[in-house]
Amino acid sequence: MHDASKTNPTTPRRLSEVEKWDFETDVAIIGFGGAGACAAIEAADAGAQVMLFELASEGGGSTAMSSGESYLGGNGGTPIQRACGFEDSTEDMFNYLMKSFGLIADEAKIRAYCEGSTDHYHWLVDKGVPYKGSFHERRAIIPMTDDSLLYSGNEKCWPFTEIAKPCPRGHAPTIEGDNGGPLLFKALANQVQKRGVQIHYDTRVLTLIADDNNHVHGIVIRMNQQEYTVKARKGVILCNGGFCMNEPMLKKFAPKLARGNYPVGNPGDTGTGILMGMGVGGCAINMSEGFISMPFYPPAETTFGIFVNAQGQRFVSEDNYHSRVAHGVLQQPEGRIYLVLHADEDFTPPPLLNADIAGTGETIDELEDELKLPNGMLKHTLEFYNQQAEQGNDPLFHKAAEWLEPIKAPYVALDCSPDRGVIIPYFTFGGLETQPSGEVLNHNGDVIPGLFAAGRTACGVPRSGEGYSSGTSVGDATFSGRMAGKAAANQKV
Amino acid sequence: MHDASKTNPTTPRRLSEVEKWDFETDVAIIGFGGAGACAAIEAADAGAQVMLFELASEGGGSTAMSSGESYLGGNGGTPIQRACGFEDSTEDMFNYLMKSFGLIADEAKIRAYCEGSTDHYHWLVDKGVPYKGSFHERRAIIPMTDDSLLYSGNEKCWPFTEIAKPCPRGHAPTIEGDNGGPLLFKALANQVQKRGVQIHYDTRVLTLIADDNNHVHGIVIRMNQQEYTVKARKGVILCNGGFCMNEPMLKKFAPKLARGNYPVGNPGDTGTGILMGMGVGGCAINMSEGFISMPFYPPAETTFGIFVNAQGQRFVSEDNYHSRVAHGVLQQPEGRIYLVLHADEDFTPPPLLNADIAGTGETIDELEDELKLPNGMLKHTLEFYNQQAEQGNDPLFHKAAEWLEPIKAPYVALDCSPDRGVIIPYFTFGGLETQPSGEVLNHNGDVIPGLFAAGRTACGVPRSGEGYSSGTSVGDATFSGRMAGKAAANQKV
Repeated sequence: MHDASKTNPTTPRRLSEVEKWDFETDVAIIGFGGAGACAAIEAADAGAQVMLFELASEGGGSTAMSSGESYLGGNGGTPIQRACGFEDSTEDMFNYLMKSFGLIADEAKIRAYCEGSTDHYHWLVDKGVPYKGSFHERRAIIPMTDDSLLYSGNEKCWPFTEIAKPCPRGHAPTIEGDNGGPLLFKALANQVQKRGVQIHYDTRVLTLIADDNNHVHGIVIRMNQQEYTVKARKGVILCNGGFCMNEPMLKKFAPKLARGNYPVGNPGDTGTGILMGMGVGGCAINMSEGFISMPFYPPAETTFGIFVNAQGQRFVSEDNYHSRVAHGVLQQPEGRIYLVLHADEDFTPPPLLNADIAGTGETIDELEDELKLPNGMLKHTLEFYNQQAEQGNDPLFHKAAEWLEPIKAPYVALDCSPDRGVIIPYFTFGGLETQPSGEVLNHNGDVIPGLFAAGRTACGVPRSGEGYSSGTSVGDATFSGRMAGKAAANQKV
Repeated sequence: MHDASKTNPTTPRRLSEVEKWDFETDVAIIGFGGAGACAAIEAADAGAQVMLFELASEGGGSTAMSSGESYLGGNGGTPIQRACGFEDSTEDMFNYLMKSFGLIADEAKIRAYCEGSTDHYHWLVDKGVPYKGSFHERRAIIPMTDDSLLYSGNEKCWPFTEIAKPCPRGHAPTIEGDNGGPLLFKALANQVQKRGVQIHYDTRVLTLIADDNNHVHGIVIRMNQQEYTVKARKGVILCNGGFCMNEPMLKKFAPKLARGNYPVGNPGDTGTGILMGMGVGGCAINMSEGFISMPFYPPAETTFGIFVNAQGQRFVSEDNYHSRVAHGVLQQPEGRIYLVLHADEDFTPPPLLNADIAGTGETIDELEDELKLPNGMLKHTLEFYNQQAEQGNDPLFHKAAEWLEPIKAPYVALDCSPDRGVIIPYFTFGGLETQPSGEVLNHNGDVIPGLFAAGRTACGVPRSGEGYSSGTSVGDATFSGRMAGKAAANQKV
């Protein structure tokens, strides 16, 4: 008899210890967020019996808390891209994403994601997610209008412009305000219910059930203070998120994310799925990486400013996506970081950033003095910048011409130093290594029979803040959920 | 009967499958490098029967290939430090190492290492490692004289000078040339032999033997094309190195180290020990980090130069340890990196760096033109630097006064861009999470009974190139080997 008090995610229950199956299904899905919902829909559509297990009292996960934006394109363009006058090619999308994640990119996953991207758009629309063929031209993290399409990454930024034609690929469900996530999830949840999927809320999955070869056969759950076993004839799909809410796990695997101060996720993002996978030999990769950012826009106009380090030097192009700028900030040697802007009388700092005003000046000398920057450095930086911007050039960091204007007096400097109160959101990108199908791999690169993972429990398309674009996390979660749902349902038993 | 063809390090042989023990010992040590030798000595001295298993035909591992330098100090100073006129405090050493590794430091390990550091010196001397009380004042990676003591890290560099009194802690065995590693290892190997430790060379350890709770009971080895089982009554100690020679493992866990082009290690550094530990639930941490460097000195005089990026800006203090400078280089946005130096007629580039001359100039304008750097940027950088250096200041990066001199014409710029032929040595810092005692921890933070790890198989004191000091790897390998040897020998059975 198993000692239940010792149950933890990284110790699978051995099949030989299971005395009876309390529940049986074809596919057991852990976590009813974006990935889990899509996995359930696809598995059911492929004819499998599906059960969903959710820790919370309702579904949604981090997807429902997000803007619901999906990064989609390629294949000539989604209908939304085309309605807005954009053609998109799969190669441009592929090259852009490969360049974004560089040495840590997963080529096979990016390839599958790009090739399946417009199909994924149609699938989402078919499931009731509404998009509108209107382009949100103004730079934003989230469109607060009901526009659907926006540039949500570094597509228009150097050096990406050198290898891929820029195209907006952020697809937000059409709704006013920051309400895309709930809208997206509601549509998916309706589809799950329609298919008669049995959903167990308030249910903690304790651990996997595996045989001596670590093949997965089911899960151990706790509902109403009772432990039950669930047989999953075709497979278990781990869709229970990343680990940004698990402090010891962050400290162990992603200690540098401690520079963030605002975890982005739901309380269930405790890495349990990743730990369960590791417990049966699953290989977790990219564990140190995460999204880590600084919401210095909106308003879009801050892009006209310059970031400078404690040397009074620029170090990044300010038209980069916010997490790429934050990556630059976090790489600077010790010392303060400032965002220098023109400020008229009614200047207000960016509302999401929570940055203090570190200094102001009618002249740049005055500002430099106030910031105690090395004598003349900021002055040279600004003069050089302004001179070049006047001509529409940024020879240092290649900021796009649309954001190049001399910065005029009076000046204000916002304190964007990490640890000085500025908001630094973060979440994790490390997870189980999977095939594009969602099959979890062990350390030898072999598939672990019966185990699948999707969303942030897997290490998916998005792999670093440096290369992130909005929509690659929700887009990947829903897409990878679908792939895993199909693959699990198609297992021979 | 076990299917031997399927044996791989991450799949432990189950105890229930073991039909007989071909060998029995108290402590089985895998890998006869610096860590393994020290583990064997301590385990034998604590009264345990010890067997050593080495893949190669002789011992040595990466320790014997290294300079043999150990990072030692604190506790008032080693006799060598004191003979050279240096007092050292444990707190200074501790604060220095904690600051070096920052968010990824292991406080308990650094504490134990600093507190045990002079004791470790005496232990090494007692085992026959010779040191000489002479200080190598000239900046070097390795003293080519027979001097023992040198500054081997960032001790004299800002911001370390703000939190710890500088003190040289690199202890090289006294011998002319780069021969400290063989000398150190020979002394240790003699001690191992003296203790009658049975050493099996040309022996591959295939996997661990563990029971169903992943408690470790022994190992499976292959010698002379035959498979044998070895029972380790008190424990198995994994001392078989890091994974810098395992390309698929590097690609999976430390993809960014691919920017290196010169692996530092022995052919056995294939991560097998780490994989074996993971196979019984061991938690591997810090897997993405490694030493990655650029040997831009010797000669020490290159420290008078300045590194500039594609913006013509400095980004690091050139008096930093070489891997800290390389860390700065590798963080720069795309584009070339140059080391700008004064060059007279008989200028020769640093011999270890393999850098091309990218440009020369009788004036800085000429050099800037030749390098095609943004107009005036390099000129401003150099003029500012020279003006400040004249007064012994470096307000930007706080280079120490001893290296501050205006750089005079004519100039030369060495191309230090990664991927342009410059030598970039690397090795790995990721490994099994252990207690300071060497006990391997699982994902729950519990000790895995019967399993120990030391040297680069464990994640030890050194954790990043950014914070590395020469001698922390060999110092940690020998020290952690000793701790693991003692702890294993002291297990109750």
